[in-house]
Amino acid sequence: MALCAPLEPADHELQAAAFTSPAKWHLAHTSWFFETFILLPNLKGYRPFNPLFEQLFNSYYNGIGKPFPRDKRGLLSRPSLGEVLRYRLWVDEAMQALLADTSLWPLIELGLNHEQQHQELLLTDLQYCWSVNPLAPAYAAPMNETKFTHQKISWHEFGGGIHSIGYQGNAFSFDNEGPRHSVLVSDGAIANRLITTREYLEFMADDGYQRPDLWLADGWAWVQQNAIEAPLYWRETHDGWRRFSLHGDQPLALDNPVTHVSFYEADAYARWAGARLPTEAEWELVASKQAVVGGFQESAYWYPQGAVNDQSLQQLFGETWQWTSSTYQAYPKYKPAAGAVGEYNGKFMCNQMVLRGASCLTPVAHARASYRNFFYPHERWQFTGIRLARF
Amino acid sequence: MALCAPLEPADHELQAAAFTSPAKWHLAHTSWFFETFILLPNLKGYRPFNPLFEQLFNSYYNGIGKPFPRDKRGLLSRPSLGEVLRYRLWVDEAMQALLADTSLWPLIELGLNHEQQHQELLLTDLQYCWSVNPLAPAYAAPMNETKFTHQKISWHEFGGGIHSIGYQGNAFSFDNEGPRHSVLVSDGAIANRLITTREYLEFMADDGYQRPDLWLADGWAWVQQNAIEAPLYWRETHDGWRRFSLHGDQPLALDNPVTHVSFYEADAYARWAGARLPTEAEWELVASKQAVVGGFQESAYWYPQGAVNDQSLQQLFGETWQWTSSTYQAYPKYKPAAGAVGEYNGKFMCNQMVLRGASCLTPVAHARASYRNFFYPHERWQFTGIRLARF
Amino acid sequence: MALCAPLEPADHELQAAAFTSPAKWHLAHTSWFFETFILLPNLKGYRPFNPLFEQLFNSYYNGIGKPFPRDKRGLLSRPSLGEVLRYRLWVDEAMQALLADTSLWPLIELGLNHEQQHQELLLTDLQYCWSVNPLAPAYAAPMNETKFTHQKISWHEFGGGIHSIGYQGNAFSFDNEGPRHSVLVSDGAIANRLITTREYLEFMADDGYQRPDLWLADGWAWVQQNAIEAPLYWRETHDGWRRFSLHGDQPLALDNPVTHVSFYEADAYARWAGARLPTEAEWELVASKQAVVGGFQESAYWYPQGAVNDQSLQQLFGETWQWTSSTYQAYPKYKPAAGAVGEYNGKFMCNQMVLRGASCLTPVAHARASYRNFFYPHERWQFTGIRLARF
Amino acid sequence: MALCAPLEPADHELQAAAFTSPAKWHLAHTSWFFETFILLPNLKGYRPFNPLFEQLFNSYYNGIGKPFPRDKRGLLSRPSLGEVLRYRLWVDEAMQALLADTSLWPLIELGLNHEQQHQELLLTDLQYCWSVNPLAPAYAAPMNETKFTHQKISWHEFGGGIHSIGYQGNAFSFDNEGPRHSVLVSDGAIANRLITTREYLEFMADDGYQRPDLWLADGWAWVQQNAIEAPLYWRETHDGWRRFSLHGDQPLALDNPVTHVSFYEADAYARWAGARLPTEAEWELVASKQAVVGGFQESAYWYPQGAVNDQSLQQLFGETWQWTSSTYQAYPKYKPAAGAVGEYNGKFMCNQMVLRGASCLTPVAHARASYRNFFYPHERWQFTGIRLARF
Repeated sequence: MALCAPLEPADHELQAAAFTSPAKWHLAHTSWFFETFILLPNLKGYRPFNPLFEQLFNSYYNGIGKPFPRDKRGLLSRPSLGEVLRYRLWVDEAMQALLADTSLWPLIELGLNHEQQHQELLLTDLQYCWSVNPLAPAYAAPMNETKFTHQKISWHEFGGGIHSIGYQGNAFSFDNEGPRHSVLVSDGAIANRLITTREYLEFMADDGYQRPDLWLADGWAWVQQNAIEAPLYWRETHDGWRRFSLHGDQPLALDNPVTHVSFYEADAYARWAGARLPTEAEWELVASKQAVVGGFQESAYWYPQGAVNDQSLQQLFGETWQWTSSTYQAYPKYKPAAGAVGEYNGKFMCNQMVLRGASCLTPVAHARASYRNFFYPHERWQFTGIRLARF
Repeated sequence: MALCAPLEPADHELQAAAFTSPAKWHLAHTSWFFETFILLPNLKGYRPFNPLFEQLFNSYYNGIGKPFPRDKRGLLSRPSLGEVLRYRLWVDEAMQALLADTSLWPLIELGLNHEQQHQELLLTDLQYCWSVNPLAPAYAAPMNETKFTHQKISWHEFGGGIHSIGYQGNAFSFDNEGPRHSVLVSDGAIANRLITTREYLEFMADDGYQRPDLWLADGWAWVQQNAIEAPLYWRETHDGWRRFSLHGDQPLALDNPVTHVSFYEADAYARWAGARLPTEAEWELVASKQAVVGGFQESAYWYPQGAVNDQSLQQLFGETWQWTSSTYQAYPKYKPAAGAVGEYNGKFMCNQMVLRGASCLTPVAHARASYRNFFYPHERWQFTGIRLARF
Repeated sequence: MALCAPLEPADHELQAAAFTSPAKWHLAHTSWFFETFILLPNLKGYRPFNPLFEQLFNSYYNGIGKPFPRDKRGLLSRPSLGEVLRYRLWVDEAMQALLADTSLWPLIELGLNHEQQHQELLLTDLQYCWSVNPLAPAYAAPMNETKFTHQKISWHEFGGGIHSIGYQGNAFSFDNEGPRHSVLVSDGAIANRLITTREYLEFMADDGYQRPDLWLADGWAWVQQNAIEAPLYWRETHDGWRRFSLHGDQPLALDNPVTHVSFYEADAYARWAGARLPTEAEWELVASKQAVVGGFQESAYWYPQGAVNDQSLQQLFGETWQWTSSTYQAYPKYKPAAGAVGEYNGKFMCNQMVLRGASCLTPVAHARASYRNFFYPHERWQFTGIRLARF
Repeated sequence: MALCAPLEPADHELQAAAFTSPAKWHLAHTSWFFETFILLPNLKGYRPFNPLFEQLFNSYYNGIGKPFPRDKRGLLSRPSLGEVLRYRLWVDEAMQALLADTSLWPLIELGLNHEQQHQELLLTDLQYCWSVNPLAPAYAAPMNETKFTHQKISWHEFGGGIHSIGYQGNAFSFDNEGPRHSVLVSDGAIANRLITTREYLEFMADDGYQRPDLWLADGWAWVQQNAIEAPLYWRETHDGWRRFSLHGDQPLALDNPVTHVSFYEADAYARWAGARLPTEAEWELVASKQAVVGGFQESAYWYPQGAVNDQSLQQLFGETWQWTSSTYQAYPKYKPAAGAVGEYNGKFMCNQMVLRGASCLTPVAHARASYRNFFYPHERWQFTGIRLARF
C-alpha cells in the first residue's frame, strides 16, 4: 500500500494491455491469495468479505473456479478502492488468528513472497499504462543518470564440470527452484557487468534492427510485424531518443544498463557482439558465490543504476533481470504441490525463457541466486537487461 | 455533472469498448468543444487551461489535429477527475465574457446541444461498462415494471403524396435536419405504440434468432458470428431471462418496450410480424403533428415506460429511439458548415441507419420531430426500440 | 466455357480472397443453379450428378442447406475440372427435356441471367487472383490506350418532378428492378461522360488521398487502415504508376475511364471536383432515354474505352459500372419470390451502394437502364468508375 | 515426382493454411535449392531458368532476398505445372556437370536431404489440404488396421550418468545434430512402444480434454480457444469417431499408434498416465543402440503401423515422430554455416520442441538416432505420436 502513495485514485484502475493489471487488482488479489489458500481452508468460522471476490480476484487458478477474464480487470470500477482497502484489513485481521500455527508457515511465506512479486508487477504495470498518456505522469522526481568512465567488459571465468544448482537451505524458496540437482557445465566466462545503453546504441547504429542475420526467425518476425526499432518506452524526437520511465519523460541514461529489451533483442545483441547469453546454470554457478547486493526496491531508485568503474563482477542483483538462454522447464523430478496452489509455477513451464537476478523494483529479501523468473521471449515491460557469456 | 452524482470516482474512468467513452472524458470533451470552437477563435487573450487538452479531448475533428486514439480514452488517469472539473469551471467562466455576443449564439447553442447528446451517451456508456461487472452496479433503485392490459397494435393511417420534411422554425436544429424539402410518400399506416418485451419474446419463441429467412444477409452473419440470441444485456438463468440496466440486475419488464435491439433485430422482427419499419419521412410526417411528450431524462425513469392502455398514437418521444428503414444520408442540397465544426454530422452520412424519436435518457428540450439520430445497424447499446409500419 | 479458353488448368482453381471464387467454381455453381432450382423440383426421375454437389456449389441459399464455406472454395481440387465440365454437360442435357415447358421459362431465364452475372465475376475474380502473381499473367495481348483530345465535361440537364423508375416491359428483369414506382427528383444535371484516369491523377496530385476533409468518415478510416493511395491494381515504380489488368502489367491509360475505385474514392473525387454522385433515380431517368451501346464483353476489349471526343451523353453502358449515391434498398412494395430463390437479391438490401450501367465485361444482352448492381462501399475489384452530377 | 503420381493436376496447387505449401511449390523449391546454392555460385555460365524464380521459390532465406509471401504460394497458378517440371529437368541437367566435383558433395548431399524432407512435407501438406474437402479424396486404397492383442507397456530402463549425444560418423548429418557433446542423464526408463489410439481414447473418456489440471497453461489456452477435443483429422459421427488420412475417410484404427497430436496433447496424456515425455538425450541414448527399422515411406503404408505383440523395444523409427520434453536449442558450441545456407536450421532454435524418430512418410535413408526434428508445440499436421518415459 505504501507503493501506491504517489498515485491518484484513477491510477489504481488502469489496464493498458491484457498482460498488465490495475494497482487496485494487485491490492485485492494479494489478499485474495491469503483468503483463498489459508483462511478459507483453515480458519474455522471464517466468513469471506464478499463471496463474489473469489471469482473476481482469482488470477489463473482453475482449481478454484473460473477466473474473471484477465483482459477486463480494468473494468471493475466496483468494488471501489476504499472497499478493496477494507478487504485487505479484513483479511489481515483474520490472519492474526493463524499466525501462531507453524504448520501454516510455509503457505504464509508463500503468500508473502507472492505479494512481493506483485509489488514489482504493480509498478511495471503502472509504468506501462502511464506510457500511453501524452501527459507523461511521473512516479518520482527526475533521476540523475549514472556517470562512469566507460570500460570494456571484463570476463569472469568459471570452470566446467558437474555442479549442483537449485535452492539449498532452510529459508523460503519457490517450488520451481528445486529439486537441487547436478548439471554438466562447460568451461566458459561471464561478463562482469550488464550491457549499457551506450553499448546498445552501437548495436542500433550498426543496423542491428535491420539485419535479419542477427536474429532468430521468430525474433525477426516480431521485429517486422511490430515495427520494433528500439527498446520499449523509447521514442525518437528531433533531438534524438528519449525514454519514458517512472521518472516521466527523460533523455537516455547512457551509462545505465539498457533495459526493457525482449529476449529476442538480448539474443540479437549477443550475436552481434560475438558472444552469447549465459545458461541459467552458468549464471547460478557464478552468482551463488556473490553477495546479494544492488539497487533494490528499498533504494527507491526505480531505474537500474550504472556499474562501478572497475572490473569486479557486479550488477547481478537489484538492477535488471537478466535473460538467459535457458527455456523455463521443470528441474528433474520436480513435482508441483497438490491442489490449486500447485498451479503457481508448474503449468507455465512451456514457451517461456528464464531470467535470473533481480531488478531495481524487487524487494531485497526476495532475491537469491537460485531464483527463476520467466517471461515469454517477446515480453519487455519488466526491467529486463543483458549480461553476456562466452565459451 | 449532476448526472455523475451516483458515481464512484473509479466509475468515471471506464471504457469497456472503443465505442464507449469514460464519463470523465465526456465531462472534459463537452468543455473542450466550447474552448476549441468558441473561446480560442473569439476571446481575445484567452489562455487554454492546458494546451495538451486540445489533442486529448478532441473526439474526431481532423480539422483540429490528430485526436488521441479513441479506444484508449479509458487510459487517461491523468488529468484527474478534479482537474477535469477545474477545466470545466475555467471554460465556463471564460464563456461568461462572450454570452452577450449574439453572433456567437448559434455556436453556443450548438455547444449546449452537443452537451445534451453527451449526457445521453455518458449514461448509455456507463451502463455498457457496468454490464461487464459481476457485481452489477446500479445507478438507481430497482424500478417497477409497467403493467397494462396487453392490447393489439392499432394502426394509425397516413395519406401519401408530396409532403415536406426537415426542420422548420427559428429555434435550434442540427444541420442534418435540413434543408426542409419535399418527399413523395406512399399511403400507409404506422403502429400506435412500440413493440413490448412480451411481444419480442414471442418472436424469440418462434425461433426468431434461428431462421435465416427472417434476416438480412448481413444481419444473419452478425447473429452467427456473435452468437446473438437475445437483446443486449439479457442473460439466461435457470429462472428464465434477466436483464441488466441502470437499475442493476432485474427480471424482464414484459409490458415495457423492448430495447437494446439492433437494426438487424428490429428488421427481422418486423418481417416476422408481417410488417416493416417506417421510413424516416413517414415517421416525421406523423410525429410532426404530435406533442413532444414522454418519459425523458428529467423523469429519472432511466428505462422506457410502457404504453397507455388505449389505441392512441403514443411513445413517439422519451421512451426509445425507433429504428427506421432509412439510411442516413444528406437531404438534397445539404451543405455542412465551413471549418472543422462542419465535421459534426456530414461525414458520418454513410453505412448508418436513421433513428427517430428520443429516449428515456434524452433531455426533453433536445427532442423534436425533425431530429435525426443515426447508428450502425449492428449497434444496440443505446435505448433503441421498434415501431412497425405497413402499406 | 469459352471465356476459359485462355486459362491454364491451374488458373481455374484460384481464390485470392474470400470475395472471389475460382473459375471452376463459377462453372459448377451456374449449373448447380439449374439443377437445384429447375431440374430437381421439376424433372421427374432426375438423378443428381453427385448429391454432395448440392452443398459444395451452393453459394448462399440458406433455404437449400448449409453452403460449403465461401472462403475455402479454392481448396476444392476435387471434383477435377474435367468432372465439373461433365457436370455441366449432364445438367445441360437434362435441361433439354424441360425447355418446352413455358411455365419454367421465367426460372430458366433467371438461370441464364445468373450465368451472365457469373461470366463477369469469373473474369474480375481471375484478374484479382492474377494480380498477386509477380509473373503478371495476361488474359489478352497488350491493349492500346484510347487517345482523345481532352475536353471538359459537358453537363446534361434533366428536369425535376415526379418520374417513374423501375423495369417496364415484357422481357426479363431481376425482382429488385421493380415494382416500377414514382419518385420525386430535383432539377439537376449529369456529366456527359466518365471521369478519366488523367482527371483522377489531378485529384491525387492535389493530395486527394491525404486530405480527410474530402472523405466520408468511414472512407477516411478505410484509407488509413489499408494505406490506400491509388485505385486498385496500381503500383508505383521509379517510372511512375503502372497498372495490372487482364492485359497484364501496363502503363496507365490516361484517357480511358478511371476504374477499380471504391464508392469512397468516387465520393471523395466528386467532393473534390465540387460536384456529387448521381442518385440511381437520376441516372435511370437519363439513361432510359439512351440506346444501350458500349464496349461490352462481346467486344473483347476487357478494359473500359475512352470517350468520343464530343459533348454527347455517352459511356452509360459497357465501360464501367457507375457508383451512385443511392443505398441499395427495396423499392416500395417490393416482395422477394417465395422459396430459396427469393434469397437471390432481397436479403442483400443493406449496407451496399447501387451501381448503374454495365461494364466492359458485361454481356450486352444483360444491360438495361433499370438494372441495379450493388457492392459494399469499399469494394473495387469490379470495373467500377465515376460519373458526376450536380444540382 | 513419383509421389505425385496419384494427384490430379489441381491437387498440385492446394494451400489450405500458411504452414502448408502446394505440391507444385515443393517440386520447384527443391530444385531452386540446387540452383541457388550450387549452380549459380559454381557453374560458370549457368543461365537461370527464370530469374523471377529466385524470389518465387525462396522459402525463408533472407540472405538470398525477400521471399514471395509464404501464405500466398497457393496463388501461383503460373508457372504452370508443366513449366515447373521443365524447371526441374533444366536444373537436373545442369547439375550433371558438377557431380564430379567432390568439394561440392557436402552441399549436394544437403540438397538431397533437403528434398527428402520436402517429400514428407509434400504428403502431410496434401493430407491437410484434402481434409477440408467433403469429398474426402484418397491418395491410396483403404488400409487395414493393425490388430494385436493389446498389452501393457514394458519399460526399457537406461542407466544415468554422463553420455555423449550428437551425430558421430562420416555420412551426412544436419548441422543441428552436432557438435557431439556430453550430457548428464538421470536413471530412468522409456516405454517399449508408442501409445495406441485405443489408449488415447481412454484419456479422452476420462475427460482428458476437459480437465485443466492435466495441461500446461499454454496448452489449456490452445484447447479452449480452438475447441480442441480430439487429435487432428478426427470427426465425431453418430457412429462414433472417424478419421481422415491419405486413405480417405475411415474408422479409427484402434491398435495403430495415435498420431496427429500436438506437444500439448502428448504432454497432457503423459501427465494423465502418471508418466512423462522423454528428453531428447534419453531418446537418443536408447535409440542409438537400435537398428533403424520400421514402416518408412518406401513401404507405402502412409500410416503408422501397430506394434508387434511382444515386449521388445520397437517403433522408434518409421511410424510416428515422437515428441520429447526438450526444447529445440543449439548444442554447446554449435555454429551455423556461413552464408545464406546457414539459415537452414539455426535461426529456428526458439519456441519449438524436438521430435525424435521418423515417420511412415520419411525415406528410410533419411532416418537416424541423432536426427532432430522440430515443430511448434501446437502443431500436429505431421505424423506425430507419443512415447512415454519415467524416472
